[in-house]
Amino acid sequence: MHALSNTKEVREVTDGSFLSPKGFKAAGVEAGIKGNKKDIGLIVSEVPAVCAAVYTTNQFQAAPLKVTQESIAKEGRIQAVVVNSGCANACTGEQGLKDAYETRKMVADKFSLQEHLVAVASTGVIGVNLPMEKITKGIEQLNPGSSAAAAADFQHAILTTDTVMKTCCYSAVIDGKTVTMGGTCKGSGMIHPNMATMLGYITTDALVDQAALQLALRNVTEKSFNQITVDGDTSTNDTVIVLANGMAENKTLNAAHPEWDVFMELLTKTSESLAKQIAKDGEGATKLIEVEVRGAQDSLDARMMAKQIVGSSLVKTAVYGADANWGRIISSIGQTKGAINPAAVDIAIGPIVMLKNSEPAAFSEEEALEYLKGDFVQIFVDLHNGDASGKAWGCDLSYDYIKINASYRT
Amino acid sequence: MHALSNTKEVREVTDGSFLSPKGFKAAGVEAGIKGNKKDIGLIVSEVPAVCAAVYTTNQFQAAPLKVTQESIAKEGRIQAVVVNSGCANACTGEQGLKDAYETRKMVADKFSLQEHLVAVASTGVIGVNLPMEKITKGIEQLNPGSSAAAAADFQHAILTTDTVMKTCCYSAVIDGKTVTMGGTCKGSGMIHPNMATMLGYITTDALVDQAALQLALRNVTEKSFNQITVDGDTSTNDTVIVLANGMAENKTLNAAHPEWDVFMELLTKTSESLAKQIAKDGEGATKLIEVEVRGAQDSLDARMMAKQIVGSSLVKTAVYGADANWGRIISSIGQTKGAINPAAVDIAIGPIVMLKNSEPAAFSEEEALEYLKGDFVQIFVDLHNGDASGKAWGCDLSYDYIKINASYRT
Repeated sequence: MHALSNTKEVREVTDGSFLSPKGFKAAGVEAGIKGNKKDIGLIVSEVPAVCAAVYTTNQFQAAPLKVTQESIAKEGRIQAVVVNSGCANACTGEQGLKDAYETRKMVADKFSLQEHLVAVASTGVIGVNLPMEKITKGIEQLNPGSSAAAAADFQHAILTTDTVMKTCCYSAVIDGKTVTMGGTCKGSGMIHPNMATMLGYITTDALVDQAALQLALRNVTEKSFNQITVDGDTSTNDTVIVLANGMAENKTLNAAHPEWDVFMELLTKTSESLAKQIAKDGEGATKLIEVEVRGAQDSLDARMMAKQIVGSSLVKTAVYGADANWGRIISSIGQTKGAINPAAVDIAIGPIVMLKNSEPAAFSEEEALEYLKGDFVQIFVDLHNGDASGKAWGCDLSYDYIKINASYRT
Repeated sequence: MHALSNTKEVREVTDGSFLSPKGFKAAGVEAGIKGNKKDIGLIVSEVPAVCAAVYTTNQFQAAPLKVTQESIAKEGRIQAVVVNSGCANACTGEQGLKDAYETRKMVADKFSLQEHLVAVASTGVIGVNLPMEKITKGIEQLNPGSSAAAAADFQHAILTTDTVMKTCCYSAVIDGKTVTMGGTCKGSGMIHPNMATMLGYITTDALVDQAALQLALRNVTEKSFNQITVDGDTSTNDTVIVLANGMAENKTLNAAHPEWDVFMELLTKTSESLAKQIAKDGEGATKLIEVEVRGAQDSLDARMMAKQIVGSSLVKTAVYGADANWGRIISSIGQTKGAINPAAVDIAIGPIVMLKNSEPAAFSEEEALEYLKGDFVQIFVDLHNGDASGKAWGCDLSYDYIKINASYRT
């Protein structure tokens, strides 16, 4: 059932997950942190996996991020990741740090691992201490498996206001070996990642050099997770972790490997798929919005402008209301510092051109309404000012966003 | 009825308006641009007034801004300002510029003024050409007066999605003469000014040096209009204009004048009052939010952090829902580049301390709920990292914001 062939080398594994690469197991249990929903999840690899990670740039990094960074710093390998939802363990001072270390130790003890091979993560309300009794009991119940049900258990356990699980899987042949990469993530609110997004996990059985993997993750993150926004708020807990356990038995991958491009394609497709799934499941969202800016002087500019447009509350509400209000798009571009020629801009919503050389173009309102009623809206901007381009993803802003956020905590 | 005495020198004139300073008249008429609502307004001074102005930093400045800048550049004086609502004349290319010049000429001809003494402004939908027949007929009907009704006519004519007129008036004695300053403005959506806000008009009969007035306006704008946000979107049309016609007969004011501080106080109070009125009347708003950041290393940092907090969709929705979710406040601070000590932050909502030295403080949820139910919410942050402070103003994010913006244009 390897259905969709995206490129010659990289194939989408439509029924795959982050447990499809060799040697990974997972679990998810109800520890009672969130009432009767799964709230503690675990990923574990048969062998220590080369690990790369990116974290939020928020100055108030949560306690588990500090502990995870310490773990990875030791030898660049991780064998188990434990995640709880319902409590972010952020802005919790000394006690928060102590609880994160304690959580790491409990998982290490249970699975007979060295402590520095365990990464910890939390998501949920800020400023509340972890309920350690519940965490302890939850960890005791963890019983990892490799079935699709085990994957779903983990995927459920990391959700907060998300409405769907996020998953994807791709494979490619490298050195004559099948290399598989899968991913899962969570995120629906406080989504405006800078360096990484709210909890993303990517597994692969590829054998990869750690430094090369870290650089690759950083580059790919800039164009995927960092290009989505739901509400412009950057979380204290954003983390994306890649675990590469080498069980595919290819030769060690780095930039000098002749098939490095194939691996980068795997990582790019996986990251983009997960990022778009988060944007689409933004709090209250009814539509996925994709903005592409072309003709920019450099790709940084293009990405910045695309993200500005997709993050504009006025653009988001117009898309929600299926209103072809392109004035809000051009206003968004203009408020960035990106290099533009104000007299040479084209704007199209889907196939419908609305601005040509910065002059309004006649278009059919009915046709525009019909297009905007769909659940995937593409916005194209051509600056005619260079050769670079960039994309960003977001969602519309609906009544339900207010409903969800006016009473999230209480 | 000079009721509220704010300081020794500057008094609030509670029944005053922008027509209280000597020598100003105004009008507002229905030209049919917005159906049966007033949509063209005029302010005119008996004599040419020294003029200072600040404009949007949006790279797509609307046509009327270009024409107004050209008018002021000629001799730094303006005698009449004409404003239409319902159509922003932004992103309208060559035709838009032609229409703005034509509007200026019609007003100059009608009131026998040189063209460069007329400023023009537009607000409303972007990307639509001015309906010049209606503009022409509207200008013909303008019949300026100095009554409170004439002030109200102008104030009505400049509104778009605003729900209330904005006005204020202050007076002080300078050189033994009573100097009066009044102001009015409009703005409710696309409010995230950078250099100025959506259409603000300040009149005064003070005699002021033009260069000193321009510098004063720029400085005061940084701390008032530029510190409000409704939705994070910076308009293409933002303009604040001060007209100082000198009819109070004080000696020319500049920084060397012994009572310059009094004039600065007048300008600061007027600008802050108007800015707060815009924030309070933000689209869909039910509450005014004021954020004060203290203990910062410099005031730029403090203002940036205050504006980040008040602009956070998550903070805004929490305030709407009267949820004391201070985690969203600290997360907002952390995502700025402002200098902080992550272990030394205090946060209070109104009188209720929620974070002390970055550790959660116990507080009464009931007391917090009671406070947050009010229509004025103050948030205090102390960084304990320096002596500088800064304020910002905004509003909550409600269902009505979505309602207003999902179908603004159509």
